[in-house]
Amino acid sequence: MQGNDASDIIEHHVEEEMEKKGTRSHAASSSSSFPGSVTPSDRDGHSGTQSSHRLLAYSDALISIIATVMILPVAHTKLRESVQLLLTTKIAVYLMTFLIVTVAWAAHILFQVIVRIDDCLALLNLACMMLITFLPYTFSLMATFPENVLGILLFCGCVMVIGIIQSVIVLYAFSRPFLLNEQVQISENQTFYKHHILKVIMRVPLMCFLASIFSFIFFQLSYVLLAVVIFLPYISQSLKWCRSKAIQVEESPDSVLFYSYLPNEPLSKDRVEAFSDGVYAIVATLLILDIEDNVPDPTVVQKQFGGSLTAALQAYGPEYLAYFGSFVTVGLLWFVHHSLFLHVTKVTRFMGLLNTFSLAFVGGLPLAYQLTQEFQENSHNELEAIQISCVIIFFAGIFQLAMWVVALYNEQETLHPYVRYGGREHVFMLAKLSLYPCVALGTFFLTCILSMFSAPIFHLMEITVPFAFLVLRLLVRVGLALLRLIFCPERPDPRSVIEQEDDEVTVPFNALIT
Amino acid sequence: MQGNDASDIIEHHVEEEMEKKGTRSHAASSSSSFPGSVTPSDRDGHSGTQSSHRLLAYSDALISIIATVMILPVAHTKLRESVQLLLTTKIAVYLMTFLIVTVAWAAHILFQVIVRIDDCLALLNLACMMLITFLPYTFSLMATFPENVLGILLFCGCVMVIGIIQSVIVLYAFSRPFLLNEQVQISENQTFYKHHILKVIMRVPLMCFLASIFSFIFFQLSYVLLAVVIFLPYISQSLKWCRSKAIQVEESPDSVLFYSYLPNEPLSKDRVEAFSDGVYAIVATLLILDIEDNVPDPTVVQKQFGGSLTAALQAYGPEYLAYFGSFVTVGLLWFVHHSLFLHVTKVTRFMGLLNTFSLAFVGGLPLAYQLTQEFQENSHNELEAIQISCVIIFFAGIFQLAMWVVALYNEQETLHPYVRYGGREHVFMLAKLSLYPCVALGTFFLTCILSMFSAPIFHLMEITVPFAFLVLRLLVRVGLALLRLIFCPERPDPRSVIEQEDDEVTVPFNALIT
Repeated sequence: MQGNDASDIIEHHVEEEMEKKGTRSHAASSSSSFPGSVTPSDRDGHSGTQSSHRLLAYSDALISIIATVMILPVAHTKLRESVQLLLTTKIAVYLMTFLIVTVAWAAHILFQVIVRIDDCLALLNLACMMLITFLPYTFSLMATFPENVLGILLFCGCVMVIGIIQSVIVLYAFSRPFLLNEQVQISENQTFYKHHILKVIMRVPLMCFLASIFSFIFFQLSYVLLAVVIFLPYISQSLKWCRSKAIQVEESPDSVLFYSYLPNEPLSKDRVEAFSDGVYAIVATLLILDIEDNVPDPTVVQKQFGGSLTAALQAYGPEYLAYFGSFVTVGLLWFVHHSLFLHVTKVTRFMGLLNTFSLAFVGGLPLAYQLTQEFQENSHNELEAIQISCVIIFFAGIFQLAMWVVALYNEQETLHPYVRYGGREHVFMLAKLSLYPCVALGTFFLTCILSMFSAPIFHLMEITVPFAFLVLRLLVRVGLALLRLIFCPERPDPRSVIEQEDDEVTVPFNALIT
Repeated sequence: MQGNDASDIIEHHVEEEMEKKGTRSHAASSSSSFPGSVTPSDRDGHSGTQSSHRLLAYSDALISIIATVMILPVAHTKLRESVQLLLTTKIAVYLMTFLIVTVAWAAHILFQVIVRIDDCLALLNLACMMLITFLPYTFSLMATFPENVLGILLFCGCVMVIGIIQSVIVLYAFSRPFLLNEQVQISENQTFYKHHILKVIMRVPLMCFLASIFSFIFFQLSYVLLAVVIFLPYISQSLKWCRSKAIQVEESPDSVLFYSYLPNEPLSKDRVEAFSDGVYAIVATLLILDIEDNVPDPTVVQKQFGGSLTAALQAYGPEYLAYFGSFVTVGLLWFVHHSLFLHVTKVTRFMGLLNTFSLAFVGGLPLAYQLTQEFQENSHNELEAIQISCVIIFFAGIFQLAMWVVALYNEQETLHPYVRYGGREHVFMLAKLSLYPCVALGTFFLTCILSMFSAPIFHLMEITVPFAFLVLRLLVRVGLALLRLIFCPERPDPRSVIEQEDDEVTVPFNALIT
């Protein structure tokens, strides 16, 4: 390897890289007889074990779909009366489900300790997944029949069974230590790890057990307990974060090493990315899921439009616009998310929380876009629908911006070294992140003032934003040059001039070679 | 690194591992000032470029959702008359869309040559994705109005615009060589690469252009052309495969190296896995997407069931069963797929084709399970629905088995070294792969004979299969031991005895340490 003569930092980093690839690196370094690969039989007698990497990716995909599914009942609500009706039960159910499923996803962290799986663990995990996909339904029951304890009981039953299955997974894995992370495997505190993980896993099922008992006595208390379950991890983590920022605790490197594999530590960046990708992908295609409704019936075309398919399709015009608008917005928000996470090395719990909030609003986007085409033009409802869309876009964007601010705030642990020193990349990143919130805010206030032209303003916004992203890099460069010209016109920065010259020179130079 | 003193093979393998992580390894090996990471500014003047890894993963997720979406119109068809009606247009549309989208996915291979992206490429790719998600709709139009040319025109228009965007991506990337794969970058044949890729990309759009012209003259010919577009890559590849097997061409290592980055070469294993995961995940959750239909209306509960929610929910019993049956079957088929791909190092085009067929049948599973609960018990339709389910499961499983057989057939290039020598892992893999086809076939014939008990037989099958997977390893071991006992009772294999002893000894030994 070319990294042989490099510094310790590189070695450490490369090792981290390979850590992420699951046990491939372990296999490569521990047994030289079968070079670097997922070898089910690389340790004698332990045949049939596999890296947990793909299992985790599949689970993440399942969970991200389930998290966004509850927006569908909201979207399918046919309301011709007022948008305000939407802002009641169904949206609350959607947000709650999203948060619950995200808690379940974050709790599913045990496969960071268990890096190798065998068939038994894979099947247990699938059982666990099936129960998680059932959670939105129980929650939907609770929302429809708040007075009935059946919803609470079903929900708590699911959570308890999930907890039991997860405990079985942990006990099974610790009884076969070759399945564990190498660091846990060689640790002397294996029993401590086991007990700690079991404690973390069983916390939520125990609270659900209490909730299910209280549901027979005084069911309002059960709801309080469930709310605590959902919000507690976030509240405790944000409190912890605030406290650590206030007191500036100096953690010794030992304790960091010791705790780095415990479940309440920062989320794995790969998993956050995979989960976010899943949510963005399903949200982007949510409107096309109703595709069959947009194909007109042949008899209707014959009768109403005299056989002219073009005329029949024109009736669906607004729906195409809604689909494209929603897809473009989700796609661009994914693009911003992608750019942001390129600079991030580690996702703290607080950043994870902000990411969840951002994703929850992204999930509402297709709904908002669908609303904008459902009402008569220039009606009060259309204005409301457009303003709700703007608000949703604004919050989806502003939480992304907040993530960047939080990452900058503790840049030592969260950002790549090369972005820590600021410069043009920083400005560019900020411009990217603030484009959507600014545009959404601008559109919102414009539609308030010029309420007659709300629809044209909104559609103009939809069309211009993608182009704004295309020319953003140019704009930022021009803006910076202008700023430099205004504030220090006498001393042009020599470095940046060289850089820009480089830019111009490199391309033709390379083109000449080819 | 611990691999320092190991053989060349390991080093080569580790480098391959890192290759997969995109440019992280490039950054680590080429510029030691910024240790191993995706560094937007690791080459001066090229700030703002990024690894294309996550973009590709997101695109794969989008495409896999779109491929399976067309099963929804089939599933939502309300037919009380006969199952046979289903087997007409809508299933054909579903299968066609699946194949078309898979062709689009396979053609989206250009990001194997372009390993670094900048903002412009990311946005162009998103535009491309949006058009791909629109393809199922145009296809649906074609199926509903086969005589109208509008469907053909829309479809061809989309494909042509996709082709133009892809060409722009290629031209843009080749004008900035630092975005390209290192191997292409240092190659002297860069222009040849460019022209070859452009040729491959523009083939399909050109045929669509022809189809759109013919649609005005003689539109039946357009359909023929489109069918050619869909099947040609598969037919040509399978013909090529058959020929290469028949003639046994000895390819020189040079030509392999030369062609390994050309788009018509074997698919990337990572991408096949990601695409399959996406399809399995969306199919597993497809039935829960209709979740809102299964929450009873409060007024109905009050009137019809006297306020008893439990009684109201019992009416949905068969639907829960359908959901769990479908989830379990899809989950276990994923599990088999996962086990299979652990042994595979490279996916040939023919294996990719078999995988696509298997996935297409998997996509039909939720529909089949929904059918089984839609008809009256012991009716002729119920029997038909159950038999269709068995047929779908059988084909989904048999194509997986075929993939394994094809992989074994050219094991030199497709399998890990340690599985080439057969043994217990082989037998176990075969048992896993043949479990579902065998069970489905058995259920099919049992329901033919005992048509009165078709539903109980089917539900018994659903319940036993997961347990069969759990005890499969044990069964295979017992079966092998029995075979050994029967055929060579005098000479027990000493190696396996030691291995089994090891198994028993290891666990308590490790437990003692902790």
